[in-house]
Amino acid sequence: MSFKKVLFAVFVSAALTSTPAWAGSVEDELMAVDRAFNKMAQEVGVGEAFIHYLSSDVRLLSEGGQPVLGHAAMAEAMAGFPASVTLEWDPVEAVASSSGDMGFTWGRFIRTHTDEEGNVHTSHGKYLSVWQKQEDGSWKASVDIGNGNPAPEE
Amino acid sequence: MSFKKVLFAVFVSAALTSTPAWAGSVEDELMAVDRAFNKMAQEVGVGEAFIHYLSSDVRLLSEGGQPVLGHAAMAEAMAGFPASVTLEWDPVEAVASSSGDMGFTWGRFIRTHTDEEGNVHTSHGKYLSVWQKQEDGSWKASVDIGNGNPAPEE
Repeated sequence: MSFKKVLFAVFVSAALTSTPAWAGSVEDELMAVDRAFNKMAQEVGVGEAFIHYLSSDVRLLSEGGQPVLGHAAMAEAMAGFPASVTLEWDPVEAVASSSGDMGFTWGRFIRTHTDEEGNVHTSHGKYLSVWQKQEDGSWKASVDIGNGNPAPEE
Repeated sequence: MSFKKVLFAVFVSAALTSTPAWAGSVEDELMAVDRAFNKMAQEVGVGEAFIHYLSSDVRLLSEGGQPVLGHAAMAEAMAGFPASVTLEWDPVEAVASSSGDMGFTWGRFIRTHTDEEGNVHTSHGKYLSVWQKQEDGSWKASVDIGNGNPAPEE
């Protein structure tokens, strides 16, 4: 294969396998942000991930609790996130405004709680986050809410 | 009072008591839409109000149930809304995108259930609706979710 052909093959291959920032839709961006949010929660901690991804004026509308308003109150609430609990989620869909500065993701979550005897209790639910693009170009969730449901059918 | 003065008084009075469509922010519009949604639920019925105000591609994420996707499935689910249950809500806040074609409202709800012996059980919660402006200029909720909390402190 000539050098030009190799170069062309590399280019085509790169074009097929990577998604440059300029090529994706806002919806793709939001799906990626929500997945990165979940990834950080698994790798660093749920509380830390919420502190990173939720906006300064966030409304945290957690099941069973009163609304928690603003980043400081949210950070305080999430600091108590128990080590015996895991929370993993996966977005199903993202929808964005035409201006591309607001959108929502919704998806499914799985929560586990390990009790004192080491038994793992699993519960399922769904969530909705509304995202707003910040002045620095990053996305932060302005509101976050979820609720429970039975285990989904496979 | 001269005719001109009367006319002026009528004009000032109208300006002070009515909110023309062009004068309000998108947030004001969304608060009004959400309040009208609740009003219709009280006057006509919760099911009918959901059918009117939820979008063709709605994601209804009700507590305890699997996600209900699309208007037909939502209408079927809401048709079974029991006559023994009331659901009243009031938005706390609305936030809109810069394009003014998407926004969310969140607020509080009160649900009552009257059992067979006539006892009324009251529960409290909060909700989040994301609204999208339709081609005809109306607002429809693209996603609706809520969850419970103890009675708020007065």
